[in-house]
Amino acid sequence: VTHHRRTILLTLAYDGTEYAGFQAQLNQRTLQTTLEEAIWRITGETLRVVASGRTDSGVHALAQVVGFRTTSKLPAEVFQQALNGSLPPDVVVLASTEAPHDFHPIRDAIGKRYRYMIHDGRVPDVFRRNYLWQYRWPLDAGAMHRAAQCWLGTHDFKSFQTHGSPRVTTIRTIREVTVTRSPPPDENLVTLEVEADGFLYNMVRVMVGTLVEVGRGSRAETWPAEVLASRDRRAAGMTAPPQGLFFVRVDYPPLPPMQMPP
Amino acid sequence: VTHHRRTILLTLAYDGTEYAGFQAQLNQRTLQTTLEEAIWRITGETLRVVASGRTDSGVHALAQVVGFRTTSKLPAEVFQQALNGSLPPDVVVLASTEAPHDFHPIRDAIGKRYRYMIHDGRVPDVFRRNYLWQYRWPLDAGAMHRAAQCWLGTHDFKSFQTHGSPRVTTIRTIREVTVTRSPPPDENLVTLEVEADGFLYNMVRVMVGTLVEVGRGSRAETWPAEVLASRDRRAAGMTAPPQGLFFVRVDYPPLPPMQMPP
Repeated sequence: VTHHRRTILLTLAYDGTEYAGFQAQLNQRTLQTTLEEAIWRITGETLRVVASGRTDSGVHALAQVVGFRTTSKLPAEVFQQALNGSLPPDVVVLASTEAPHDFHPIRDAIGKRYRYMIHDGRVPDVFRRNYLWQYRWPLDAGAMHRAAQCWLGTHDFKSFQTHGSPRVTTIRTIREVTVTRSPPPDENLVTLEVEADGFLYNMVRVMVGTLVEVGRGSRAETWPAEVLASRDRRAAGMTAPPQGLFFVRVDYPPLPPMQMPP
Repeated sequence: VTHHRRTILLTLAYDGTEYAGFQAQLNQRTLQTTLEEAIWRITGETLRVVASGRTDSGVHALAQVVGFRTTSKLPAEVFQQALNGSLPPDVVVLASTEAPHDFHPIRDAIGKRYRYMIHDGRVPDVFRRNYLWQYRWPLDAGAMHRAAQCWLGTHDFKSFQTHGSPRVTTIRTIREVTVTRSPPPDENLVTLEVEADGFLYNMVRVMVGTLVEVGRGSRAETWPAEVLASRDRRAAGMTAPPQGLFFVRVDYPPLPPMQMPP
């Protein structure tokens, strides 16, 4: 009787350093397995969680959304507290809520936002070594910002996709992309923020690997537009390392009011 | 012929999470051993480094000063670059310089500064879990600041010393002590900064463990003065955990100009 299964949504922050990514893999510590085990300890159910977007090994999340279906009668809010008492210290549940029965975290997403942090100081930052890309050359953040604006709007981003699961289409719409240098005392930090209706596999990391070529002065500001037009991964820069990448947010349409249980 | 041995000073930042403190211990990963091995890889010398102040397991440093004597002819500045190529990613040399032959990092120190960071938000910060004390109750930072001012000046701080190596005297002079709450978006962060001519073993951590009792409202603002007057460790609060503590800085008198080699 499926109407007794409720859909619970968790908003999570996690430090991805010690995980082999979100998705369950044999004999690896993953966020999916960690979460499913924590839920099992609370409800006794062996179930499957689904993330709005899988993150790779070493990639972090500020507000990932994860859904699962449960027969538990626990109020949705109680999952936050109970899971935070059970999860390891590098994962935290920021919120838990109930969603309509037919809600799906991947299918219903209408937008996502990522952040990528680069440190171009001469001396590495030991305290954030797992949260940024320590880059060897000084970067011109203004040039990177201007160069990135050619990606705004709807384009075929095939050049920025690496060997991932095949997608129906490589066309995406970028709504905002900015590159900024932080003010002192964090003036060695260069941050990319990008928001789109969705992303291809490794898309943000290839974008960053392309923009640093402009930032260090070895490519012109017009080059990223040429890379885009080429529709060829080999034309783009390297895939930036995972630890600088943060899944910032996923957006959904306003959820309808919850149905009352029968 | 000792005049061929030069004294090199390193300024270090390190993340103490993965170390059993600064001081060498059998079969433990310590900062002292890590540094001495890195120097050995560069100069071939088996030598001893001396820190201005030892830090405990889990305690961090923003600018620790470490000295050693070497027969190496390498220019002092070269040690920074060479060591940074050899040290693990949680230790970095911020500067290297030559000091007068008779300089001693402990004896010549005239002041030290520590920082302690507490997070009193309802939801833990997964990205800084190794750099702050996650506190269970909301804190009144203003009350903590006012309560701490009784420690300013020269006092016997015996109440704030735990089982350490015996000191000649437990009298110290505190020059500045502040407790502040950060502005948004970091409003869950409460930071203590304290500067003194020197510190007793665990002194800052016992001070913090005492101040949080005031901050959460279970002790009056006048209580830390009573603890000080008691000269009894049992009168004070708990020893706050190590991971919130940062060795910020050590001060020396202006160094005399270097003697030219003979």
